Amino acid sequence: MYIKPKSKKDVLKNIEQLGTQILQELEKGKNPYIEVPVRTLKNIKFDPKTRKLYLGEIISRRYFFHLAQTRKFTQTLGVAALAKELIEINKHLSLREVYYTLKKTIPGTRINVVDEQTESNKAVEDLELIINALREQLHINANKLGAVAGNVVIRDRGDLIDWSKLGSGGWSVPSNVEDIEFVKVNAEFVIYVEKAAVWERLHEDKIWKKLNCVIVASQGQATRGIRRLLQRLHYEHGLPIYVLTDADPWGFYIYSVIKFGSIALAHISDRLAIPKAKFLGLTVDDIEKYGLKKHLIKFKDVDFRRLEQIKNYEWFKNNKKWQEQFKKMKKLGAKAELEALASRGITFISDVYIPEKIKNEDFLD
Amino acid sequence: MYIKPKSKKDVLKNIEQLGTQILQELEKGKNPYIEVPVRTLKNIKFDPKTRKLYLGEIISRRYFFHLAQTRKFTQTLGVAALAKELIEINKHLSLREVYYTLKKTIPGTRINVVDEQTESNKAVEDLELIINALREQLHINANKLGAVAGNVVIRDRGDLIDWSKLGSGGWSVPSNVEDIEFVKVNAEFVIYVEKAAVWERLHEDKIWKKLNCVIVASQGQATRGIRRLLQRLHYEHGLPIYVLTDADPWGFYIYSVIKFGSIALAHISDRLAIPKAKFLGLTVDDIEKYGLKKHLIKFKDVDFRRLEQIKNYEWFKNNKKWQEQFKKMKKLGAKAELEALASRGITFISDVYIPEKIKNEDFLD
Repeated sequence: MYIKPKSKKDVLKNIEQLGTQILQELEKGKNPYIEVPVRTLKNIKFDPKTRKLYLGEIISRRYFFHLAQTRKFTQTLGVAALAKELIEINKHLSLREVYYTLKKTIPGTRINVVDEQTESNKAVEDLELIINALREQLHINANKLGAVAGNVVIRDRGDLIDWSKLGSGGWSVPSNVEDIEFVKVNAEFVIYVEKAAVWERLHEDKIWKKLNCVIVASQGQATRGIRRLLQRLHYEHGLPIYVLTDADPWGFYIYSVIKFGSIALAHISDRLAIPKAKFLGLTVDDIEKYGLKKHLIKFKDVDFRRLEQIKNYEWFKNNKKWQEQFKKMKKLGAKAELEALASRGITFISDVYIPEKIKNEDFLD
Repeated sequence: MYIKPKSKKDVLKNIEQLGTQILQELEKGKNPYIEVPVRTLKNIKFDPKTRKLYLGEIISRRYFFHLAQTRKFTQTLGVAALAKELIEINKHLSLREVYYTLKKTIPGTRINVVDEQTESNKAVEDLELIINALREQLHINANKLGAVAGNVVIRDRGDLIDWSKLGSGGWSVPSNVEDIEFVKVNAEFVIYVEKAAVWERLHEDKIWKKLNCVIVASQGQATRGIRRLLQRLHYEHGLPIYVLTDADPWGFYIYSVIKFGSIALAHISDRLAIPKAKFLGLTVDDIEKYGLKKHLIKFKDVDFRRLEQIKNYEWFKNNKKWQEQFKKMKKLGAKAELEALASRGITFISDVYIPEKIKNEDFLD
């Protein structure tokens, strides 16, 4: 299920309701509390039906008048007050800026609202759950990284931006894509690639023009901004998402996060995961098929360990095709990089590898 | 001195001359050689006049018929042949792709042209010196990272791109900016900031509009693409470059690299360094001046060590103002981040800190 983001008005209303409710209870002489689902591993579940990570039923209740709980209670309200201000003045802060903003003394005390960024980060995550809105809707941004190109026109901060007319650089993906309006989406699918250098390869070869697609890249894990961008293109415009990574456990996990959600963000999988995303490679079979054996990189201990972990993730455990890949990779004891395809020809990845795979629907799911 | 990049034609001509010359010597039964300046520390000098790192006079000569030298000789020619092809078909490769492309067997042998990327990287650097052209002009790209916004219009791959009309994301800076044409540059200076999140702060606050400037960011060290972009805006369009980093040894070094060049790339300082770049902060004095003492981050051993190294760099050694800063920082035993300015107000950095500093020309040089 895809949850359409709340309107700005609704987010603001929910924050105000939270504040008003607590104030009223205080005025009545009651001890107000906030309920937040627990986000530790024991409460993170995988739903084989929707194929997404989600939070279980364990709830933690935090009272205002409680020595051990009042600090977290206050921090959550501190973030709520800040988010309200940000939305009202239409400004955004990064997580780091939120931390510095809240590292202020509570009047009449020598105590800071937060002392460490872990505290403000957790308070932000709590508030996401309480208000039922993404941190981006609370005007609190994560990282900015990545570029995009393709036959898409968007409107953002009043500018009309054509992703097909931005030269060699492309559009720089912001940390927050909630307010972007898609004006024209003339593409059949999206390729997400984990490496900026490979994106430049695909872009120079005009693959998005030839295959009528959108190409997106970051460097390593996809940022939240990119994941939301992919999700919006997928759900709002029906575009399939194909993930292109190295053939190694780290690449497989990049795919896993885009598709199933991440453990750290299981509480918002519905707003970040894309269960129908497909793996475009590199698979272990591709190493043989595309003649990359000369370019294998031997596994180190850390690679073996990571492979073992991924193999045992609940969402991969009963997937025969993936288990086969994991088994073959373990036996091979080696990984291969996307750039190795350059050994077959400068534009081989754009002219042969990707078109062939997409034509034959040669995906892992 | 700024060296205007060679034309594509000249680069190609130089590569051809290199090849022809070697071929002729071989045909005459001679033992051809290539001369390359040595790039180890003992040959890296600092010129206090031009305030740039440069390579000294030590030359290494590599013969083709020489057991210990023929490998490097062949690798350099391998890169030269590849660069010639790339320029002719107008394609670019990343360093990693160059490595995979050259990891091929020499006909009639079982020997690869290169086995490790360090070999192809060094061959690329050699060729930069031999041909007297940047690797970007050889169509070999480094990393892609960063975003830019401002009152500038460029032409790139046939597209007209207005950096002032790209919404919240901005233009994504490519790894290679050699072929970009500046159509309109309506700005008074450039701010380079080391953090994408702070760039988003400045961009949301429309600082480039208010102060009529260009804002550029990467994440950490500036990529070669960004350094060339800054350099071109500086030398071709007369814009001063202001560098905005954290108050810590790592931030100071980011500034140092932009201004003086880097040790690793001393052989092309003339094409990457900007000796007149100025440091916009954070300085140690700013910590006091802008009330950030509450937000100091204690030094670890590694910070003290890095500070000591930087203090002793030749280009900082005789700089009184910088030495003062280093001394104060050592005494303080702590660093401060740009984001700490958020504690003074959400838009404090854009509304007060930067305008005040620029108005008062409160720079370190």
